[in-house]
Amino acid sequence: MDKKGNSIIIDAADHVAKGGVLNRRLFLNSAIASTAALATARAAFAQEAVGEGQDDWTLIPGSSAELYGSRSRFEEERVKRRLTPMSDEFYNLRLTKYTARTPLDHMLGTITPNGLHFERTHQGIPDIDPDQHFLVIHGMVKNPLKFDINALENYPTVSKQFFLECSGNSGTLWSETPTNESLQAIHGLLSGAEWTGVLLSTLLDECGVSKDAKWIIAEGADNGMMTRSIPIDKALDDTMIAIRQNGERIRPSQGYPMRLFNPGFEGNTSVKWLRSLYVTDRPVMSIQETVKYTDMMPDNMSLQFTLEQDVKSIITKPSNAMSLKQKGLYEVTGLAWSGKGRISRVEVSADGGKTWGDAMLQDPILPKMLTRFRIPWQWYGGPAILQSRAYDEFGSIQPTRNQLIAARGRKPTYHFHAIQSWGVQSNGEIKNVYA
Amino acid sequence: MDKKGNSIIIDAADHVAKGGVLNRRLFLNSAIASTAALATARAAFAQEAVGEGQDDWTLIPGSSAELYGSRSRFEEERVKRRLTPMSDEFYNLRLTKYTARTPLDHMLGTITPNGLHFERTHQGIPDIDPDQHFLVIHGMVKNPLKFDINALENYPTVSKQFFLECSGNSGTLWSETPTNESLQAIHGLLSGAEWTGVLLSTLLDECGVSKDAKWIIAEGADNGMMTRSIPIDKALDDTMIAIRQNGERIRPSQGYPMRLFNPGFEGNTSVKWLRSLYVTDRPVMSIQETVKYTDMMPDNMSLQFTLEQDVKSIITKPSNAMSLKQKGLYEVTGLAWSGKGRISRVEVSADGGKTWGDAMLQDPILPKMLTRFRIPWQWYGGPAILQSRAYDEFGSIQPTRNQLIAARGRKPTYHFHAIQSWGVQSNGEIKNVYA
Repeated sequence: MDKKGNSIIIDAADHVAKGGVLNRRLFLNSAIASTAALATARAAFAQEAVGEGQDDWTLIPGSSAELYGSRSRFEEERVKRRLTPMSDEFYNLRLTKYTARTPLDHMLGTITPNGLHFERTHQGIPDIDPDQHFLVIHGMVKNPLKFDINALENYPTVSKQFFLECSGNSGTLWSETPTNESLQAIHGLLSGAEWTGVLLSTLLDECGVSKDAKWIIAEGADNGMMTRSIPIDKALDDTMIAIRQNGERIRPSQGYPMRLFNPGFEGNTSVKWLRSLYVTDRPVMSIQETVKYTDMMPDNMSLQFTLEQDVKSIITKPSNAMSLKQKGLYEVTGLAWSGKGRISRVEVSADGGKTWGDAMLQDPILPKMLTRFRIPWQWYGGPAILQSRAYDEFGSIQPTRNQLIAARGRKPTYHFHAIQSWGVQSNGEIKNVYA
Repeated sequence: MDKKGNSIIIDAADHVAKGGVLNRRLFLNSAIASTAALATARAAFAQEAVGEGQDDWTLIPGSSAELYGSRSRFEEERVKRRLTPMSDEFYNLRLTKYTARTPLDHMLGTITPNGLHFERTHQGIPDIDPDQHFLVIHGMVKNPLKFDINALENYPTVSKQFFLECSGNSGTLWSETPTNESLQAIHGLLSGAEWTGVLLSTLLDECGVSKDAKWIIAEGADNGMMTRSIPIDKALDDTMIAIRQNGERIRPSQGYPMRLFNPGFEGNTSVKWLRSLYVTDRPVMSIQETVKYTDMMPDNMSLQFTLEQDVKSIITKPSNAMSLKQKGLYEVTGLAWSGKGRISRVEVSADGGKTWGDAMLQDPILPKMLTRFRIPWQWYGGPAILQSRAYDEFGSIQPTRNQLIAARGRKPTYHFHAIQSWGVQSNGEIKNVYA
């Protein structure tokens, strides 16, 4: 309804799927739509510019700049990472440490501020003095070398925007019954940033890698000594030693002063606080690639080294972090990504996947980076099931939950990347549902 | 020299300009270069992986995640914004407020973290309660409307990466003698971010703008009531009401909860704490577009409304923030931007502009956004003058300082965008010079 209580009708020609999914260009150019109705629908959120005044902030001088800026006090309480205790890492130390999830319901765009980037550690965040930290490259190389942060800063760098996702992200959606947890709790192990670093190939070139080398064992300097095996082809492709995140030095929680960064791969392969790269001809088979981060198939065999994150998308707004307060026109927006490359298409459904409309993709569409999508949606006040489905440039299509379970069974806890459903109730409440 | 004291010779075929400017692809593919010499030159910064061990951070559990993350204690002292007192704004209030400049010497990539974005206010930063703040659009419109932050969050948004530059940036380079100030002091009123907002055209469409409208007067809710006139063509093109910076709500220093954002225009036209947009047929001729932010020409007439920032580039590394400690191979890197659109080319010279080599441009090259460029450079140990020259897709070329002065005279203090020179001394010290 508009603000005068009249109901709003969008021209039938602008509907591209059932349940109120509208032409993606509707918001961009009102000339193609039924302008009057659209303007009314939009303006339902605005108010007539009459009557009451507003607080007058102009009467007093403001405050001064800081050495490192901070958020509004009105945001600090409202927007924060969700901290959850790690269940299994610290049990013998009688310590409680937390995993931090990005508040995706409070984000727009694709870049995550460094203070809100998700983080997951395996024995807490070490407090490393950068002048006392080295990365050693050794093993099947001609010249073993070591590099401190100052050495790396002198090397040629690349700057690229990439997503980072924990392979445990969305894992709760494997469960039999749909969780009531929030968007942030379900999908918040996902962030995007501009990473700057030295290509690992540059350093390997200098060390002189043996032609028989097949894997590189990366080891972190943290209490957990995170250890993962990286295929040599990846190491010689786009893997970097990252030293900057969104322009500034990476933070302690992200591996200060240096981390491995494997674009598109599951998060923990991008080993933080990197201190050793051991070049060899076989994977190390660490606990992080055998007991954990593997997926048990129906035949009880483990799927290992599923390193590349699958094509995936989520709707971040609306989500169960909000209720719809009135019928009318909404923007449905979310994020899509693929560990293989670029997103080529995202569709949105309001009827649980029966009919689909193409969403608008925000450019630039970058490989292995989050892509924001948007589509207008008319909510008529009844029940609806909102879904998004992503495609990448290599033809991969995000599966339905049933398709994923048919392929991998019910035993995995990692690598959930199927279509997720937000069930809109008649009263405007939104719940995570299986559909 | 390499670490054994041998001097390094890069194949003559890889030289593209005098003074050691090398082929931009040299760092990318050693197959095209004289590999042995290149590896040696690079490795001068690394060390042999023998001998001493390193501090062992693995022995103690690390710390836990925070609700909003922070930097390493080793970075906090080292990297901060430069604060300088504003000379003229507060003289009658007996207050001292500061302008904050981005530490470009400590940045790589193109995104500036929100805590390090430059800021300039005209009477300090107001502490606005978002629930008590409205933007009113009125004047030559059919339906005057007002919008609070919650209304704007319901509108369709766009997310784009843009530079923001104060038109006073680099202004000290107009002076007769070259300043000894730092890179940060000279050029630090420049940052890049992903801005998300509602296109102003969307809101104007709803208000129904008169066809006789030619200007929009934007007014801020700060103590200085910043007021600027925006041409209607710009307002209907890419101007947005920005509500997010790098994903999170914009900060108080950037206009919380909403600011105007005019991509490519001089900084203060993007009025912060926006409270009024008055649609009219003439500019308001405020102090910020008459006494200030105008350029006096040789005939004592003022150049007004030079809104679009000219094509420009700066070398951020090396700069006078560092000294070169040894002869050898370095990466010269910096930023280029144009208020018109995309950067198409950046050249680098090591001999004060006599000969030039093409720099590598980091993709994606986005319109009205910072573009990072890089080129390898061999320092032989003698004096050198490093310069960069940018071109945009519309054929604009960054002028020399002499060309700019010939065109605009010596009276302006704003809009300095000429080529800047870093003079490398034989002892490795670097100074800002005129060349």
